[in-house]
Amino acid sequence: MGRSSRLPLLIDLYELTMAAAYHRSGIEEKSAVFDLFYRTNPFGWGCAVFAGLEPALEHLESLRFDQEDLDYLASLALFDESFLAWLSSTRFTGSVISFPEGEVVSADEPLLTVEGPLAQAQIVETALLNIINFQTLIATKAARIVRAAGGRPVVEFGARRAQGPDGALSATRAAFIGGARLTSHLEAGRTFGIPVAGTQAHSFVMAFEGELEAFRAYAGAFPDHCVLLVDTYDTLESGVPNAITVARELKQGGRALAGIRLDSGDTASLSVEARRMLDAEGFPDVEIFVSNDLDEHVIASIQQAGGAVDSYGVGTRLATGMGADGVALGGVYKLVSLDGKPRIKLSAQKSTIPGRKSVFRATTAGGAALMDVVCLDDEQPANGDVVHDPVTGAGRAIPPDARLRPLRHEVMRGGRRTRPVPLLDGCADRAASGLATLAADVLDLHRATAYPVMLSGALHRMCARMTADHRREHA
Amino acid sequence: MGRSSRLPLLIDLYELTMAAAYHRSGIEEKSAVFDLFYRTNPFGWGCAVFAGLEPALEHLESLRFDQEDLDYLASLALFDESFLAWLSSTRFTGSVISFPEGEVVSADEPLLTVEGPLAQAQIVETALLNIINFQTLIATKAARIVRAAGGRPVVEFGARRAQGPDGALSATRAAFIGGARLTSHLEAGRTFGIPVAGTQAHSFVMAFEGELEAFRAYAGAFPDHCVLLVDTYDTLESGVPNAITVARELKQGGRALAGIRLDSGDTASLSVEARRMLDAEGFPDVEIFVSNDLDEHVIASIQQAGGAVDSYGVGTRLATGMGADGVALGGVYKLVSLDGKPRIKLSAQKSTIPGRKSVFRATTAGGAALMDVVCLDDEQPANGDVVHDPVTGAGRAIPPDARLRPLRHEVMRGGRRTRPVPLLDGCADRAASGLATLAADVLDLHRATAYPVMLSGALHRMCARMTADHRREHA
Repeated sequence: MGRSSRLPLLIDLYELTMAAAYHRSGIEEKSAVFDLFYRTNPFGWGCAVFAGLEPALEHLESLRFDQEDLDYLASLALFDESFLAWLSSTRFTGSVISFPEGEVVSADEPLLTVEGPLAQAQIVETALLNIINFQTLIATKAARIVRAAGGRPVVEFGARRAQGPDGALSATRAAFIGGARLTSHLEAGRTFGIPVAGTQAHSFVMAFEGELEAFRAYAGAFPDHCVLLVDTYDTLESGVPNAITVARELKQGGRALAGIRLDSGDTASLSVEARRMLDAEGFPDVEIFVSNDLDEHVIASIQQAGGAVDSYGVGTRLATGMGADGVALGGVYKLVSLDGKPRIKLSAQKSTIPGRKSVFRATTAGGAALMDVVCLDDEQPANGDVVHDPVTGAGRAIPPDARLRPLRHEVMRGGRRTRPVPLLDGCADRAASGLATLAADVLDLHRATAYPVMLSGALHRMCARMTADHRREHA
Repeated sequence: MGRSSRLPLLIDLYELTMAAAYHRSGIEEKSAVFDLFYRTNPFGWGCAVFAGLEPALEHLESLRFDQEDLDYLASLALFDESFLAWLSSTRFTGSVISFPEGEVVSADEPLLTVEGPLAQAQIVETALLNIINFQTLIATKAARIVRAAGGRPVVEFGARRAQGPDGALSATRAAFIGGARLTSHLEAGRTFGIPVAGTQAHSFVMAFEGELEAFRAYAGAFPDHCVLLVDTYDTLESGVPNAITVARELKQGGRALAGIRLDSGDTASLSVEARRMLDAEGFPDVEIFVSNDLDEHVIASIQQAGGAVDSYGVGTRLATGMGADGVALGGVYKLVSLDGKPRIKLSAQKSTIPGRKSVFRATTAGGAALMDVVCLDDEQPANGDVVHDPVTGAGRAIPPDARLRPLRHEVMRGGRRTRPVPLLDGCADRAASGLATLAADVLDLHRATAYPVMLSGALHRMCARMTADHRREHA
């Protein structure tokens, strides 16, 4: 979310019609529990990086409908006075239990749980999904790209292709959590304190009589931060030689050319040749920055081809989370308990895991992540317990020497945050260290194994019992 | 763009470093012309629907850097006092020549041209691209979906999967221009005056003891706008029969059930069976609304399978513009003239068409669109003129009986709009009537022929001459 972007009506109409019907039926205050989760890890990866929690909490804390909002809603001629009066005094007074931002997560586990009065918890659905679906998608995409780059810095510069101005802001924030180190986008740099970077466009080179003149003008303005775009005319015939000329001139003045940027053609082989030319002229410290429709797959192939690249710039495919399976995380928000009683939904391929739950991570003594275990809220999983795959039901024991720790914490109570807002750097560190605990096959960019999420025996039995009850009732 | 969403720093850093270098070189005021265009029609279609102009003009009109902006920029330790002083007094004072919003456009033609002092025109690049790339993508996606639906109303409800809160707002606006009739998103409804629609979620049905009780509660609250979600438990065994019970109860009270909603399973065959059941019970007017991961291809297959559907709800794949070729329109912003002299860029597969240009559409007497002709600004294309494909150079004559009309107009001069802001309805009407002038093969959802954009003979010769000159200079 951007600066001061209170959007009380980031709500789908049906949330208010449902709330109005709850209100009329007198059940709007019933105690409800909603889980936010997704069913498939994005990009075919084995996990995701959870992001978007802080802006989501900000939305909950600021939820209120002012007179202008109420006037608009009244103009729809759908809602009665009594419901509008209820809305006018509504604040979010519930609790949120959540993974911390930056934590590694996987399909089917509840990322975030909202507990509160039914109607309140219902009307925050769209905003929570909007914020968390998108930021988790982008943080995950960034993590994949950073992995492909083998630790070389990744600069996010997707603002021009992002989905709207705020799409650009949210994308930059999430990309930073996922491991991108810098952004080109100034508003994101200011809002989130992310370091900014930038070079020139081809239009800059074209605005001068010749390429060398353009390079000299840029070096004159930024002698200590000069990265030159060398592919406007011909990379190896003119761009790199002109950059070397400017590097020499800077050196004479006691400065150093920072780098060159390649933005077209076969960047792997161009980078090797440019490196050779720079080294031969005595400029081994001039870095090579590569852009041009990159994503994790293109970067992996540049790395494999032995490209001499020091850092990568990634735009469109990072800021929009572009992947073979689409561009949206299919997170959903489902009622799992009402009035203390677990609820289940059983539509084909769209069932839910009922009840108030907690989530533990089993790791080796060395910290390697083995599996996450979802259990009933009052359970404490133990070594040796048999846990079950939520889809196939297959059982498997928690290893005897595994360490178990809870992953989620209460982050909001009574509508107020219970913890200080974490620094974005801390979220990025958490993502990096969490990813480092995962097995290589979970992080394979092409054919990943999903990081396992298992149900405790008691939860598994409750699912089975409720499913059977439902089938009987509706038979 | 949302309400009061002034974002002066929706700028990539390189635009400011370039502007600073222009400033230092004393060429920041040189008269520049930039074209905004894209090279491939999105979704493999034969055209696109141009959208985003009004928010883009709003951005230009409101461009200014306040003290807080300047303080942030100063904190980067990149810019000198003289440039920051220049920035503090900078406003956009240039002109914009553009297609109207909603017009049908095609690859390689300049959608929008910015003319103004070089540095000013440079620093608006990211914002213009961000806004127009995304909205044009979504308007085009909506137009495809509406075409697949064969004129049945399409409701946009993608807010929960859109790319950030503003991604949702911009998407709804653009989807409306492209032909979506309603939205679920209240903030978009309020901001843009788009009609809103909504039913219930599965959680609503699950919040009551039984499905029938839930349906009755909703019908009690909205007796005149009651659409019931019938797939929470079993569509044909329980959902539709319970909806029929409620339809009977509403009828006894002199009201009518508006519709049912199918959201899972084989919606084509379920809709046929539900229609049969409703008709058999005397409810031929109860409409059937279908959702569930729809896009133009799924809708086309439901229509082909004889689905009995009255309207469609489309979320994720509309609001994010999801398509086989990705989710971003690759629009670019290129310098085409400086100081009155045309400029050209020749990187492999990324060349530009130089100079100030205008665009004409050739149509039959009946209004069918034949081709667009891009020519030099002082040219007037005529019947019989040979025009050229911009990529292959192949020539073709403008038919002797074609009518020619200019497509672009000056919409901003001296930094101020020259025309009143058009109504969004008018933009949607323009899109619908523009699409109706295109040949069926341009609009084929699977294998479209690109609507042709041709260069005038004079422009074609200028491109060839400048390319040859460049090759000679750099040989």
